[in-house]
This record gives sequence, C-alpha cells and structure tokens, in this order.
Amino acid sequence: MNILIIGGVAAGAKAASKIKRLLPDSKVSIYTDDSHVSYSSCGIPYYVEGNFEDYQSLLVRSVEEFNSMGIDVYLKSKVIKILIPQKQVLICSNDSAHLADYDKLIIATGARPIIPKIENVANFRNVYTVRKIEDAINIKNKMQTVKHATIIGSGYIGLEMLEAFVKNGLKVTVIEKNEKIISIFDDDMSELIMNRLNEENLGNFEFLTGEIVSEFLGSNSEVHTVKTLSGKEINTGMVVICAGVIPNTEIASEAGIVLGESGSIKVNKLMQTSVENIYACGDCAEKRHIVSGRNVWIPLGSTANKEGRCAAMNAAGIFEQFEGVLGSAVSRCMNTTMSMTGLTEKQAIVAGFNPVSVRVDKSDRVGYMPGAGEIYLKVIADKVTGLLLGAQAIGSIGADKRINSLTPALLAHMTVDEYSNNDLTYSPPYSTTIDPLLNAMQVLRSKIGK
Amino acid sequence: MNILIIGGVAAGAKAASKIKRLLPDSKVSIYTDDSHVSYSSCGIPYYVEGNFEDYQSLLVRSVEEFNSMGIDVYLKSKVIKILIPQKQVLICSNDSAHLADYDKLIIATGARPIIPKIENVANFRNVYTVRKIEDAINIKNKMQTVKHATIIGSGYIGLEMLEAFVKNGLKVTVIEKNEKIISIFDDDMSELIMNRLNEENLGNFEFLTGEIVSEFLGSNSEVHTVKTLSGKEINTGMVVICAGVIPNTEIASEAGIVLGESGSIKVNKLMQTSVENIYACGDCAEKRHIVSGRNVWIPLGSTANKEGRCAAMNAAGIFEQFEGVLGSAVSRCMNTTMSMTGLTEKQAIVAGFNPVSVRVDKSDRVGYMPGAGEIYLKVIADKVTGLLLGAQAIGSIGADKRINSLTPALLAHMTVDEYSNNDLTYSPPYSTTIDPLLNAMQVLRSKIGK
Repeated sequence: MNILIIGGVAAGAKAASKIKRLLPDSKVSIYTDDSHVSYSSCGIPYYVEGNFEDYQSLLVRSVEEFNSMGIDVYLKSKVIKILIPQKQVLICSNDSAHLADYDKLIIATGARPIIPKIENVANFRNVYTVRKIEDAINIKNKMQTVKHATIIGSGYIGLEMLEAFVKNGLKVTVIEKNEKIISIFDDDMSELIMNRLNEENLGNFEFLTGEIVSEFLGSNSEVHTVKTLSGKEINTGMVVICAGVIPNTEIASEAGIVLGESGSIKVNKLMQTSVENIYACGDCAEKRHIVSGRNVWIPLGSTANKEGRCAAMNAAGIFEQFEGVLGSAVSRCMNTTMSMTGLTEKQAIVAGFNPVSVRVDKSDRVGYMPGAGEIYLKVIADKVTGLLLGAQAIGSIGADKRINSLTPALLAHMTVDEYSNNDLTYSPPYSTTIDPLLNAMQVLRSKIGK
Repeated sequence: MNILIIGGVAAGAKAASKIKRLLPDSKVSIYTDDSHVSYSSCGIPYYVEGNFEDYQSLLVRSVEEFNSMGIDVYLKSKVIKILIPQKQVLICSNDSAHLADYDKLIIATGARPIIPKIENVANFRNVYTVRKIEDAINIKNKMQTVKHATIIGSGYIGLEMLEAFVKNGLKVTVIEKNEKIISIFDDDMSELIMNRLNEENLGNFEFLTGEIVSEFLGSNSEVHTVKTLSGKEINTGMVVICAGVIPNTEIASEAGIVLGESGSIKVNKLMQTSVENIYACGDCAEKRHIVSGRNVWIPLGSTANKEGRCAAMNAAGIFEQFEGVLGSAVSRCMNTTMSMTGLTEKQAIVAGFNPVSVRVDKSDRVGYMPGAGEIYLKVIADKVTGLLLGAQAIGSIGADKRINSLTPALLAHMTVDEYSNNDLTYSPPYSTTIDPLLNAMQVLRSKIGK
C-alpha cells in the first residue's frame, strides 16, 4: 500500500505516524511546501515571548525521526495538482515538476493566514503572519530591534502576540475591525476580557476597535506608519497580521473534490472526501459541530491530531469515526485565561436554538484562601429543552477547568437539570463549596422555569 | 409552618437559609450542640497552616446573620430525643431539658471523628481531632509550643495537617494502620502519592505504615510518647487523630428512623427518611452512588450543601431530587494535588464490575512551556460494557481539572468509546496537544478490545 500525505504540520504528521504503525510494510510519504514538518504552530507566541530559547523546541518530530520510522518526507515540495483518474499527484520542487503515485491520498493542507486588503500590504519586509517556523524566527528577531508593534486582529493569536510583545518591552497597538476584541466570544465576555487586559495595561498597549487598516506607509521596504480608514495613523516598527485563517482547499477543489458549505473540504465521519481513496483532515477539512449538528469550520490543533489519526485508521482499513467538534478552546493573555466550548449565544440563535444564559462571577476558590482569582462564567442553554449549548469562562486558570468540565456534558447532550447533579471536586484551594458551574445551573433552572 | 433543624454546619445551615427564602413566613430554628454554626470544617488545615490569620474567616454565616434572616439559632443545645408521635424534640442545654415542636424536622447531625481504641486515649489534653472551630484554635495554639506532632491516619485530612505542621516548622510522624497511606486511592496511586511527598521531605516527616497505635504515655495530662503495637515509640509534643469519621445517627436510630446498610440514615432522593415529615441530609445521611447504584456513605462538604438544599425544598413542598454522588474529591499536600471520582479499581470489583484500567503519566502542558508539572492519571472502565467507572489523578493542579472533566461523563454513564470523542481545550500553557484523558481513552479502547 502506497499512502501519500499532502501536508505535514499536525494532521498530516499524525496520519503518517499512525498509518506506519498500523501498516509497517506500507510506503508512506509526506509532501509539503513548508520547510519544516511536524511542529507546534500554537507555540509560536510562547517562543516569541521567551518562554523557551530554541525554536527547535517547537519541532515535534524531525525529518530524520520520520525517516527512521520509514516515512519519507519531502520538504519544499508543493503538490500543485491531484490527478484522480491516474491516482497521482503533480509535485513542484526546485522549479521542476514530477508525478507521484498513491493508493490512498490524505489531504492535510491546513490553512493559511488571511491577508486583509490593505494598500501596500505586500510591499514591506516587516509585515508578518504567525503560522510557520520562519514566522516565529523572523518575528522574534525583528522584535528585538523595534519599540512598537502593530497587531492586526484580536483573536486568540493576536492577544497571545500582544502578551509576547509587551513582556519583551514593546509598546503595542492592536487594531480590530469589529466593535469588540476577540469577537469569537459573546459581546459581554469580550468586554470583560478587554477590561481585564486593560487593568494590567501600564500604558504599554492600546486597543483600537471598530477600525479598519487601510494603508501601510513606509520606506526602505519597511512599514513605519499604519493608517486606518477613519484617519488614524500609528507609527510602528513592525506589523503582525492575525486576522484569521482560510483553508487551503484549492488543489482539492480543482480536482473536483467537493467542498462543504463552510468552504473547507467536505468529509464524512471516516474523514473520507467525495472521492474514493482520498481523505482530508485537519485545518483544510470541514467538521461537524456536535451541539448544533451543523457543518462548520473550526480549525484547531487538537482537532487536527484526532482527525489525522482517524483518517489514517480508515485509510489503513480500520473502521473509525470522528464524531465532530465542540469548538473547545483556551488561550492566555496577561494572566487572563479565556476559554470556551460549544455555541456562543449568538451562534446558538443562528443554529435555531432559543438560548437563555447566565453569568456567574465568583472566586475560583474559597475566599479565605490566598491567591484566589476571579472566574466569570457564562453558560448557555436552550430555553425550550433545557439542553446545554455552550459556555465561556474568563479569569484565573480555574476558568479552563470549568469549561473542560462542560465538554463531556455537551458531548452527551445533557440538560441543565441533569448537569445540576454533577459531583465536582471540592477543597478550599480548588473551588468554592458550591462550584460556579453548579451556581450557574441553578440560575439556569429557574430561568428555564424548572 | 414550623421547621426544626438539628445541626448547623453545612447541610443544616444550607437547609435553614433555603427554606427561609422559600417560605419567608415559616418559623425556622437550628439546634446544635456545637458552639459555632455554619463554618468551613474543610478549611481548618489551611487555617492551622497559616493561609489566613483569623479563625473567623472559617465562619460562613454568623448567628446574627441567621437571626437577621429570621432564623433562630440555638448553640450548645443538644437534641437528645426525637418524639415522633408528638412531633417534638427534647433539647438539653445549660443542664436543663425542654421540648420543642416541629411540623417538619431536618436531621443534619453530621459526623464525628473516630477515636481509635488506644490505651489512655482520653487522658491527655494535647490529643486533638479536626472537626470544630475549637479544634482549629486549640491545634494552632498548641502547634506553636511543640517541635513534633504525631498524626494518626493518612487520609485527606491527615495529609493536609501534615503540610500545615511542616510549613510551621514541626517535625511530623504520620502513623497509618493500612499498608499504604491515603488508602481511599488504589494501591498504585497511594504509592505514587507517598513517593511524591517523600521527594519533598527534607527530613521533616516520616510515614509509619502498617502500624497500629496502641498506647499513649504522658505526664501532666500531656502525651509525650506514642507507642505502636509493633513496639515503636515516638516522642511527640501533640497528637492529632485523623482516623476517619462516623455518622451521628444515634438520636435518629433511637427514634426508630431506619438506617441504611452503610450505617447512616436511609433517605430517598427527596432526602426523606422512613418517617413522614422527617428529612436527613449531609454527613449523617446515606447517599446513592451514581456509578454503582449502591447505597454508600461518603461524607463530603460539597454534597452536604446540595443535600441541605434538596431537603429544604421538599420540606417546603417543592419537589426536588438529589440523584446521588460520585465520591469526587480533591486535596492538596506539599504541592501534590490528589483527586478522584467514581469507583476505584478495588471498589469496582466489589460493586460487581469487571474493571480494566490504564495509567497515563504525562506533562500537564506542552513540554517546552515553563513550569510544567506531571500528571499521573488512572482511568477505570468496565471491560464488558466499556462503561467509565472512575478515575484518580495525582500531580500538579492540572490533575484536578482532568477529574472534573470526567465527572459529567460518569453522571451520564458514558463509555470509553463515547468519551474518546471529547473535545477538550488545548493551548500550550494548559495541556498537551492530546490531553492525558484522551491518551487514557485510546489505551482503554484497545484494552477493551475495540
């Protein structure tokens, strides 16, 4: 069996390792246009921040390690065409093209940063995105030579980069086109995040919300001024674009592989695409949202790993299903944990639910214990059925714990009533006697009319 | 309506507040033989340790606060008899006895420390248990005058007291009658705990396991030597007995209220006892184990609160059910988090399951992040059905997070297969890309034969 994998960051790397373990005699090859394989893209902000010195810590598995497992890795080798009838791919590397055969093809092409339409966006060297190992190295090097950085976009990565820069002594301007920062959260939670971050702002950063970057001005191939549509001008030493990502679906789409309504590659629970013997997984593939039942595109590293594993198993002939995602995520900025799972209130409305929500603001442990932090927990349920729909938590590290204690409940389609019987651990250093989650359930029960 | 509550620590205090909110015109009285009401017994080790200075921080609600809510509190007033036909209780206070009427009676008499059979156990002043506010004050005062303390018993409270004493510069001997410390955990986990604690032992404490204390020797009403059955003699300045608790069921039992097989007061899901208009809740009441379906006695403060609430609602005529417990618990000793939920492997066998288990030892975050700690996670499932039965986790504070992420799964009777689809949050400071929980599920799946 000859298995060819396009892409080797998370899903592709996981698929390759798994399939080689399952079918030791198979030929497994990874082709990637990247110059690195199997790395932690999520770790880049922490590398820039200085949590560890060597960027090689971001590399999960080297080419040599893959080779020693019997997996061939072709770096800087871009697959430019999938030839379905021939079961071949056309690869371009070193300015020459060649064909490679496959019995099973796994598409793990990932996603790429969105570059907003900004005048002169492509003309300057000191404009970066946060995706690849080179980005990590280049941003870290440049950071040491400037006093101010501009971040375009205030999602998870934008805020992680904010912390990284501030911890390195830079002044930072974050420009967000929406009215609220980190708008994947509900508005009330986004506001809370902004308030908490501003509490730790010692004049080091500013948020410009509802502002669209219109133009870069610069000289010697370096941006020195960022202009917004409203006329603001920010003098800056570097720009990092964190404006989201889009799936790399072009070669799949051009080959006739069906894309889903989300614009990413449509797959079933076996990670099979519309074409036999071709699988897709990771950030290029569509996912099923377990709460809404809808097809969505939520690209996350943890999901990529699971999908890579599932694709590999089915490609190897072992039946395995990936049930979908909850959109569970966590991030940290300036000692604030931001975490969520399931649907936000606004997503719940779009998905056809009748959401009711509660917010509980509470200490993360018994008040007399030192080091107590605050948790701001929002839980959302359906008013008609009582079904739990999602939650968001902001605050101390205990925020993340509460979200992870809801994910199995969403997976099991539990109601508020059912969850209110949950027996959570309690001890003064770890929780209040009645956990914020259980407070939230009691309020929700009364709102639902129980 | 006249509601009389016996006991006022956790369940009783909660029941009183809840019922007064539900029925503002009712007469609500708390009778307790204690000299305090509504306090955090779980917080005593942290008070002794010095996390906060004033013992009054342990008091959740004062007598005056209860009074201002319209609740009467009678301290040092021991209910010595329940007269069911008359709907009265006989109370003894200040050496005189009197009767009080009730329409509804809530028994929240709690539990008391077990005093092992030790020669001279009652003869010395410097022998303590850890239950009441006076215990907290007395232990803290005595601690400041001695160099060595002996702790009898190595459960949660014993280990919490160990940390409290060591942090205050005492040398400590912990004597445990079982072969392993904290034997509520499976043996392999108990060993791990002992190893981790010993790693932080700078000659300050020792564990004597498999040792039974036989005799106290002393003078001037103070123990100075603890003797064990095997002949060991420990010179000590004070002794703290942490040998477990037993439910205070005597007045209920004598009145003819049925006790359960666990020896605590039998209740249904409405917290009703065998006698009409009499409810029981908290540490004196039996609980249903959600995983095994069996009646058990697991006295915990978080459960007491919930049961107090449930008893109050039903006493007030509002239908409410308490589904039971999972035995979820957490404790800390010397930077080691110890947490569990559901059945241990040994409990699972007793409950008639065919348990299979896995242990995953893993970093609590991505390896390149600073401050990474270890998590030792054991997950137990039924080999026949794949049903999740329980888990134990030892290590960094992230251990507790994993346990709380399993409690809803136990509540929902999820299988290993189902849980393996859980979408947990991931980010380098919070988890490994594949969470230890999901690693555990994959290993369990292969052990179960999926």
